[in-house]
Amino acid sequence: MIDNIYIEPQREDYKKICERPKKDKQDLYETVGNIFQKVKDNGDKALISFTSQFDNVELKNLQVSTDEIHQAIKEIPISLKAAINIAKENISKFHKAQMNSDVVVETMNGVKCIQKSIAIEKIGIYIPGGTAPLFSTVLMLVIPAQLAGCKDIVLCSPPDNSGEIHPAIIYTANLCGITKMIKVGGVQAIAAMTLGTESVPSVHKVFGPGNQYVTAAKQYAQNYGVGMDLPAGPSELLVYATESGIPRFVAADLLSQAEHGIDSQVILVADNIRIIDEINIEISAQIKKLPRRKVAELAMMNSKALCISDSDIAFDFINEYGPEHLIIATENYNDFIPKITNAGSVFLGNYCPESAGDYASGTNHTLPTDGWSKSYNGVNIDSFCKKITFQEITKQGIQNLGNAVVEMARCEMLEGHANAVKVRLESLKKQ
Amino acid sequence: MIDNIYIEPQREDYKKICERPKKDKQDLYETVGNIFQKVKDNGDKALISFTSQFDNVELKNLQVSTDEIHQAIKEIPISLKAAINIAKENISKFHKAQMNSDVVVETMNGVKCIQKSIAIEKIGIYIPGGTAPLFSTVLMLVIPAQLAGCKDIVLCSPPDNSGEIHPAIIYTANLCGITKMIKVGGVQAIAAMTLGTESVPSVHKVFGPGNQYVTAAKQYAQNYGVGMDLPAGPSELLVYATESGIPRFVAADLLSQAEHGIDSQVILVADNIRIIDEINIEISAQIKKLPRRKVAELAMMNSKALCISDSDIAFDFINEYGPEHLIIATENYNDFIPKITNAGSVFLGNYCPESAGDYASGTNHTLPTDGWSKSYNGVNIDSFCKKITFQEITKQGIQNLGNAVVEMARCEMLEGHANAVKVRLESLKKQ
Repeated sequence: MIDNIYIEPQREDYKKICERPKKDKQDLYETVGNIFQKVKDNGDKALISFTSQFDNVELKNLQVSTDEIHQAIKEIPISLKAAINIAKENISKFHKAQMNSDVVVETMNGVKCIQKSIAIEKIGIYIPGGTAPLFSTVLMLVIPAQLAGCKDIVLCSPPDNSGEIHPAIIYTANLCGITKMIKVGGVQAIAAMTLGTESVPSVHKVFGPGNQYVTAAKQYAQNYGVGMDLPAGPSELLVYATESGIPRFVAADLLSQAEHGIDSQVILVADNIRIIDEINIEISAQIKKLPRRKVAELAMMNSKALCISDSDIAFDFINEYGPEHLIIATENYNDFIPKITNAGSVFLGNYCPESAGDYASGTNHTLPTDGWSKSYNGVNIDSFCKKITFQEITKQGIQNLGNAVVEMARCEMLEGHANAVKVRLESLKKQ
Repeated sequence: MIDNIYIEPQREDYKKICERPKKDKQDLYETVGNIFQKVKDNGDKALISFTSQFDNVELKNLQVSTDEIHQAIKEIPISLKAAINIAKENISKFHKAQMNSDVVVETMNGVKCIQKSIAIEKIGIYIPGGTAPLFSTVLMLVIPAQLAGCKDIVLCSPPDNSGEIHPAIIYTANLCGITKMIKVGGVQAIAAMTLGTESVPSVHKVFGPGNQYVTAAKQYAQNYGVGMDLPAGPSELLVYATESGIPRFVAADLLSQAEHGIDSQVILVADNIRIIDEINIEISAQIKKLPRRKVAELAMMNSKALCISDSDIAFDFINEYGPEHLIIATENYNDFIPKITNAGSVFLGNYCPESAGDYASGTNHTLPTDGWSKSYNGVNIDSFCKKITFQEITKQGIQNLGNAVVEMARCEMLEGHANAVKVRLESLKKQ
């Protein structure tokens, strides 16, 4: 249950309440830099050696073979395949609808400006290992990359100690059209996708979750001109509940977040204390049945409940917090949508659990944490594109626009800039 | 003129040719960190003290006064005002057309996904000082911020040694609706917008060009959860010219880039050697007349010309380089548009100089350099927004979607996630 309860907190307390537990920012750059250097020097050999060191397995081949793909297809039960298909359909529909058409504007007679969305050519996707196979993240990253038209997509994921990637990851990647899956994890995976090795092509942008080493590696990759998706942090859920919320559902949602990890952020904001009490009773009952109970209990110790009766003030707080996931556990959720300015993904109504968006509703689950929703959005179709602008200027156009450019360039004391217009205007005078 | 001429270079040479001159990456973090700390501790007092130290002026008031704004409006000549108005109109038109409408998709019966574009609330804009007043950058950053609906916009720019910001900057900022202009530059300006002081509000994202200290400060600001526009680097122009290009114009364009600074990147790719020679003759003639001749001459020493007869190969190279600005100096430019995958902004045809886009055509001039066009785009309306996703699920919707979520959550061993669906499905069974 949530022990930290704040009744009508003051605005000056928001900052403190919104604080995420700060990890010691270890300087991982040296470790990361050394691994990058070895991958640069020794390519695949370095990957095999790091995999032996960190994943306890000696690999002969880094790339997942056709046989392994066939095996994975066989192993996945039909019921899971059906579920993955539903998720794939929904994610595809929503991300396809996000695709941009060209913006074309004739700003002046003879001056046409165009914005085209063009796919990033080479994409790297990292899927962490561990006991839970994050095949849902494969869907969330590969589907929009394919829709955007990214030409080369490589997926890296560490092998288990028998040298295999979980079949659910292989199955999903294959279903989404990935042909290049590489058995490599951690910093060495990011290094390989940054620098390229015999087996791993270098890419332009890296996506995917990971621990603090992987995050540091993604940041380090920027020194080599490789972009990254988002600053990563522990997952967060804030539930806003009113009288018309259903305590049993809210408790289940809070616990679904709490089971992620002991550093998960769980916040409840309610407009009355009674519902907080009811939710707490439900939490105590439900938590006992969870396999990951220990983790959830530790996460709940850091959780907070706020009772704020005025909804404008409540959303002031919520926007100050800027949660990754925001559930509006009320019947009249439409009243609150205009108040939301900072959040990653929002779940509307009593029948909309966060887990729906984590897997299959259609929205992306790669979202900004740690307050980054104030300036960042989650992964969407744009994350896999760049918007290139074009301008097309005719003889008439430069005659209409030219003098303004000359005037401004001169004020900025850039005579060469003015001259580039003047040579054109002069040649047109002569015609 | 361009001395480094490569005739039909091989693919394996591209990497070398595409290399930008690497600056010594000085570790500026300590300097930057110290300035941040002083601004955090002493607020405005620290800003005034750093301004005294770096800009050689003792300020009483950090904020530009109403009197100073009126004075600037008086000082700017009518011809420049008219030019700025044309630019403002064009930039507004093109950026307004980029605004996103909501994406709404019912992915399944009862499952609706929505993407809304919501303005970043607090924006900081940095305009460097120096002899050339970059009022054009004010237009490029403030216009889209206002169109996006950013609520609080603060502009910082260092004062000259008489304690004034250039009137063209003040005039343009005021014209675009900025009321908070602060006389502070360098690292201390970025620190102020990150941490907040008595005069300077803290913001969510910082925009604007600057030297290596300002760039390091923008990166450092990310430690405080403040976003930044783009990785910055020296400006670049690549011109692709064919038989139908006009050497005099191309030379003027290359020189307009070269006058920016000695580290400006100037590349010419042509399909025949004759036009390279003609362009070189024009460069030698035109460079003599430039006030910034010395700078341009030094920049030209690092410039390169490539003769590549096959246009597919030429664009292979161009996309490998990924220029900030790309001019297609040909009559048949439409043939080449589909070949372009990596560039910041593209200028089509003989009558379309880069300087048109630098000032007034309507496109933005804040663009990715140093090959970042492979994964980044320039500033556009999206740079001032976040796209928040919403999902609205009805009772029917969770019944349609629920089992897929349960199935997937269980495979990822997240029983709490499954449970958040199950409690809802069970309650519906009872109804």
